[in-house]
Amino acid sequence: MSEPDKKEITPEEAPENGKGIRNSGNTSETGNRKTKGSIHRLLLLSVGAFQDFDLAAVYVSDAQYNRNIFFDTTPQAIRLYLLYNHWGFQILVYAFILVDLALAIFEDPAVVPLPIWVTSVIELVCLAAFTARLVHYAKVIPRERFWKDPKNICIFAIILLSLVDMIIYGALKASGFYAVRWSRVLRPLLLVNITEGRQLRRAFRSIRNALPQILYVFLLFMFSVLMFSLMALKLFGKRGLKTIEGRPYFTNYLEIVFDLYVLVTTANSPDIMMPAYNFSVYFAVFFITYILINTYIFMSVFLAVVYNNYKKYLKEEVRKLVRAKRHKMVRAFGVLQERKGEEEPVVSQACWNQLVRLVQPDISNAHRELLWSVSDDNNKGCIGKVAFVQLADLLNIQVIMMKSRPHPLKTWLPSLYLSSPSRLVCRMVQHKAFMYTYDLIILVNAVFIGLDEEDPLIANVEWAFLVLYLLEILLKLYSFEPRAFFSRHQFWNCDLSLILDIVFILRILRLIRVVDNIKRFRAIINTLIKIGPTILTFGQLIVVVYYIFAMVGMELFKGKIRFFEANSTDPDKAFCGNALLKNSVFAKHNYCKNNFNNIVSSFILLLELTVVNQCGFTAVTHISARMFFVLFHIVVVIIIINIFIAFVLEAFFVEYTVDQSNLQSSLEKKIEELELGVKQEKLDGNLVDAMETNDNDMGNSESTKEKPALMFKIACKRYKTVDGLLQRMFEADLDPENFADDEDFDPNNPSNLNFPNPNFDSV
Amino acid sequence: MSEPDKKEITPEEAPENGKGIRNSGNTSETGNRKTKGSIHRLLLLSVGAFQDFDLAAVYVSDAQYNRNIFFDTTPQAIRLYLLYNHWGFQILVYAFILVDLALAIFEDPAVVPLPIWVTSVIELVCLAAFTARLVHYAKVIPRERFWKDPKNICIFAIILLSLVDMIIYGALKASGFYAVRWSRVLRPLLLVNITEGRQLRRAFRSIRNALPQILYVFLLFMFSVLMFSLMALKLFGKRGLKTIEGRPYFTNYLEIVFDLYVLVTTANSPDIMMPAYNFSVYFAVFFITYILINTYIFMSVFLAVVYNNYKKYLKEEVRKLVRAKRHKMVRAFGVLQERKGEEEPVVSQACWNQLVRLVQPDISNAHRELLWSVSDDNNKGCIGKVAFVQLADLLNIQVIMMKSRPHPLKTWLPSLYLSSPSRLVCRMVQHKAFMYTYDLIILVNAVFIGLDEEDPLIANVEWAFLVLYLLEILLKLYSFEPRAFFSRHQFWNCDLSLILDIVFILRILRLIRVVDNIKRFRAIINTLIKIGPTILTFGQLIVVVYYIFAMVGMELFKGKIRFFEANSTDPDKAFCGNALLKNSVFAKHNYCKNNFNNIVSSFILLLELTVVNQCGFTAVTHISARMFFVLFHIVVVIIIINIFIAFVLEAFFVEYTVDQSNLQSSLEKKIEELELGVKQEKLDGNLVDAMETNDNDMGNSESTKEKPALMFKIACKRYKTVDGLLQRMFEADLDPENFADDEDFDPNNPSNLNFPNPNFDSV
Repeated sequence: MSEPDKKEITPEEAPENGKGIRNSGNTSETGNRKTKGSIHRLLLLSVGAFQDFDLAAVYVSDAQYNRNIFFDTTPQAIRLYLLYNHWGFQILVYAFILVDLALAIFEDPAVVPLPIWVTSVIELVCLAAFTARLVHYAKVIPRERFWKDPKNICIFAIILLSLVDMIIYGALKASGFYAVRWSRVLRPLLLVNITEGRQLRRAFRSIRNALPQILYVFLLFMFSVLMFSLMALKLFGKRGLKTIEGRPYFTNYLEIVFDLYVLVTTANSPDIMMPAYNFSVYFAVFFITYILINTYIFMSVFLAVVYNNYKKYLKEEVRKLVRAKRHKMVRAFGVLQERKGEEEPVVSQACWNQLVRLVQPDISNAHRELLWSVSDDNNKGCIGKVAFVQLADLLNIQVIMMKSRPHPLKTWLPSLYLSSPSRLVCRMVQHKAFMYTYDLIILVNAVFIGLDEEDPLIANVEWAFLVLYLLEILLKLYSFEPRAFFSRHQFWNCDLSLILDIVFILRILRLIRVVDNIKRFRAIINTLIKIGPTILTFGQLIVVVYYIFAMVGMELFKGKIRFFEANSTDPDKAFCGNALLKNSVFAKHNYCKNNFNNIVSSFILLLELTVVNQCGFTAVTHISARMFFVLFHIVVVIIIINIFIAFVLEAFFVEYTVDQSNLQSSLEKKIEELELGVKQEKLDGNLVDAMETNDNDMGNSESTKEKPALMFKIACKRYKTVDGLLQRMFEADLDPENFADDEDFDPNNPSNLNFPNPNFDSV
Repeated sequence: MSEPDKKEITPEEAPENGKGIRNSGNTSETGNRKTKGSIHRLLLLSVGAFQDFDLAAVYVSDAQYNRNIFFDTTPQAIRLYLLYNHWGFQILVYAFILVDLALAIFEDPAVVPLPIWVTSVIELVCLAAFTARLVHYAKVIPRERFWKDPKNICIFAIILLSLVDMIIYGALKASGFYAVRWSRVLRPLLLVNITEGRQLRRAFRSIRNALPQILYVFLLFMFSVLMFSLMALKLFGKRGLKTIEGRPYFTNYLEIVFDLYVLVTTANSPDIMMPAYNFSVYFAVFFITYILINTYIFMSVFLAVVYNNYKKYLKEEVRKLVRAKRHKMVRAFGVLQERKGEEEPVVSQACWNQLVRLVQPDISNAHRELLWSVSDDNNKGCIGKVAFVQLADLLNIQVIMMKSRPHPLKTWLPSLYLSSPSRLVCRMVQHKAFMYTYDLIILVNAVFIGLDEEDPLIANVEWAFLVLYLLEILLKLYSFEPRAFFSRHQFWNCDLSLILDIVFILRILRLIRVVDNIKRFRAIINTLIKIGPTILTFGQLIVVVYYIFAMVGMELFKGKIRFFEANSTDPDKAFCGNALLKNSVFAKHNYCKNNFNNIVSSFILLLELTVVNQCGFTAVTHISARMFFVLFHIVVVIIIINIFIAFVLEAFFVEYTVDQSNLQSSLEKKIEELELGVKQEKLDGNLVDAMETNDNDMGNSESTKEKPALMFKIACKRYKTVDGLLQRMFEADLDPENFADDEDFDPNNPSNLNFPNPNFDSV
């Protein structure tokens, strides 16, 4: 352990340090405290207790969001650390990174050209912001640790290199030389190396760890491609065949290798086969064997190997993560614990309450009490270590609280609202048939949308539909408590139909509601929504890789191909402004806009390359530029896309096989016990529907039994953070009760905690 | 249970029926027999004992190969049943099916036209053969069962419909009308419905069972495509854009749906996007979103759903299979068992020996004794039910027996062969460096192969290499026992390098040997070889589906596109003989040979469609023919290819996680115990290498310890049958010792045993 870390309260020291300073929130507990050494502790009480609560709250919050930062435990450092974790700063950092990355739009080759001094000033501002953030971080953690962490060194190097590059570039440009802004390639690495980029770093680490295994398969695959190329050379080389473009067919070994590699991506099928096939049917056997072995079998093996290894390393990381989380919770427990006689140390409810209030200020009292009753299952008034450690996960379970209140109209105009016609309307709207009617209306509307809009009749019908939809909204507002309809933003996370009710103005999207009403579809859609946050991580991964390839591609290929507007009369238009493309398929297909002339078209082109490795424009430059495309295919298609597929597979398997985590079940059981549950059977269908039914039971006096005014429901099994889903995936392999393995877990070994900070996806 | 089944000896009846009729092989056991009712049984002894052994042998053999046929247990029926299972008949049936399927080559539209009467006569012969096989089957099993089995009805219907179709076709042709041989579509169904097509039936059943789940995702996917099409219509329809072929862009809803469906297969990317992208960069967002959602996410979800469901149902089938196998072994046990006092019934070694000799006549005595010592672990001389039931699986483990014998030269010319120069040669050849030298030679050779062959120098060098290779073979023959080198055909199943040593004449293939020598690669290659037999099942599946689509496709599209030889001067050549294709991309790319004009080009075209759904020639016929291509894509790409990928994934996961089955381990342990094992550490590398080393130890008198003359080794963890691999995959979920669940297993419920007979893959 490095020197400054000694300041931290380890679980072993904690009992001495934190025993007496309990209950600043609830004085009734003081009687139980031991009096040994109380004078010394009373001196500390006024200042120390608050500081201790702060420290415990930071530990819990870190555990909740899986931050792994070894901050100093001095009060100032904690305050700085809290500031560092403030969401405002985190958003600001991402904003600056976004601006820095977006500079590529304005820099040469630019979409919107700006003078160099403008982009340079903006970049300097960004770099200053990153430096400030880095300095802030350095103040929070011990100095030795700061320089041991590769990501800090990385950011420092990126800032430094960018400055150097800017100076060199400015100087060269000023003196009229050719210059390359090579440091732009480094920009996306900021996304990876900031403290908030934990998910992204984990993804990169998993990829790096899986690489050796992938490499073996890749070598075997390349061997197969090389062998087939050799056979192709021997089979076709001397037959004097011509490609459709009139070039000799399969005569150059390296070109064959490239062509056959592209065949694996199926991009040039069947063109590459046609000359041989036209010559003799038997030659088709060669290509069929090739496709079978390399496209189908090897690509499946890639998926298998990537999947298996990625999963293996990810599991290991999640295991470490869970241990680190437990460790932090044990520390927090150590700060707050008190001993009653010879019993195990415990944390009292008052103490726990204050902690939770500090960690999550916006939590309601009812919700907090529910969590406490889950932790303190036997109503002892205090909880032990095992129950305390659950807190971080409990706070991550989204619980929906519903206050049932009467409809405002019932309060304001009870005679009118409770009259029989009004009740009839309410009952009508709450009936299933009402929903089905509107589903039908939407479907009919869909047909009209598909029809020709020019017809004035259809345009008028469109208005009629709009009136119908407005009527639906009004009727629902009349029947149901409006706040239940609008203000439950927690529902949005989980229930698509409510969002869609609001964005109904987009007529076409309304169609999704019909699908959403069907239970089977809803299960699939829910799974897709659940993996949403993780797809964001993959999105960042893709952006990092695309950005780097775009930067390199722009330097290699910019200006080689030009796009001419449709009404242009330039004779160069026929061959995209490059004579090398005369009569090429590329020009004939009018692909001229697929170029590297600016960052936007680069990104679109790279996406096309991801879909089909179409690389006709290697013709415009040296043949070795093909390496660029092969490399891109290996990195993006073979590795990243396969990992993405593996992730979707795993997420779906988890959905199919497991239902809820243990903690969720116990929370739900408690809700049931306390009879605070929203009726489950009604929630199986449409959530809005269920909500409506419940509100209806409240609103109408006919309801046989008075329900409690407050009801809870666990928000659909979604995960607030990516970590939640990951932890869920590997829960079967993680023993939640096993604290024994924490003993051999050394938090001071940096390799054990090589994953820092909060995650972007949960923001 | 149907009436004739009562003749079968169920495990419950067996003790009475089969108690006294033991030991026709070994009379020393008779003393243990109970004398109760022995007079009656002695009368049965001469005939009954042989019959009982026959019956038990049939049960064991059925269990070994997972046949599930409810044959009559009368002696004649058993004899007929043995004949029915004779490999000659099975091969004959497959030969006739092959001939029947191959008729498509000679029938109109033909590759090699033959007169109708010739193909008709051949088809009649085939149909007669199928009828004979069906009648044979009907004689073997009870009549009621025969007509209850859908596959018999299926074959009967296929034969009948084929006859009807032939008559109608002949009559119509004779009277000059247009006629379609529609019954040809039914032909591949024979492959599925013959008793031997068990694997194929299982694959189809698994697909059928997974269909509902796939359907839900597919509907959601189609909904997404339809929605995007609607958006595309609204976004692009009124902008007056033109495609590269000059047609209006995105104006007809159904065409948009088709185009966007094809975009999912990435076949028309980026062409379909270009007009919109050329108009405005922002429209690219639409296509990017579409590809992300439909190509990446939905296709992954398809894989997840197909994988999950296929695995689920396959596991259920394998579970049933294992139970049926156990049930059959229990029946065999019931026939052979004898009681010693009040103890559990047992089977004596003599009895067991005779049974094994009947089941597997080619098994060596040593091998049989090894198996017995595994079953009778405590040397009691008899085994109980649990040990007896293992027999079927034990027989399926491939054990390699190696007799170590001295080199023939050592016997004939001992003085020469044991002289020091000779020994030096032997030791040199056996050294690792010898192998590495030849690896290097092969690599150098590879470079020469890649060089220009015209050069006379290189052609001569080629001869030098050939001499070097011959020298290698001769040296190896000199150093190692030749029979060890050539006659161990069991090794071929497992060891690629030995085959390759023999097929070395194919120079390029020799390169594979270098790769094979590297351990990491070998692991991957071995896994690929292991899944080989199952790929055969997929091959049959693909043939069935392709054949049906080819038949329909030929009726729909034959003659629409014509192929002209390269030297043809026909003006129609520019548009493939169809004016509709004038100026089309299809004709420009010279795809004319991609047509449905005969069965061979149909198959090749369907393969191209599997790789990329390229369907330019819907232009030549009605637009609704596109349904044909969409349907093909759904069946082949979405379902079958995904199942194939799922299978490869699962097989690799099994390889990565598990090593050997319990039974294999216990067999290996026994081999170790008896000190009959081939040294394991030496076998880790190259098997040939290990064999060589061992033979060397034998051949040279220096070997410190005299090894036994006979050695065993479990042939690499390969599975003799597809079932073996499947059983292995789900072994963790199958409890091998649990006989309790056999109680609720009703063998008389046909749904429990809906999977018949031996499998093709193991032939």
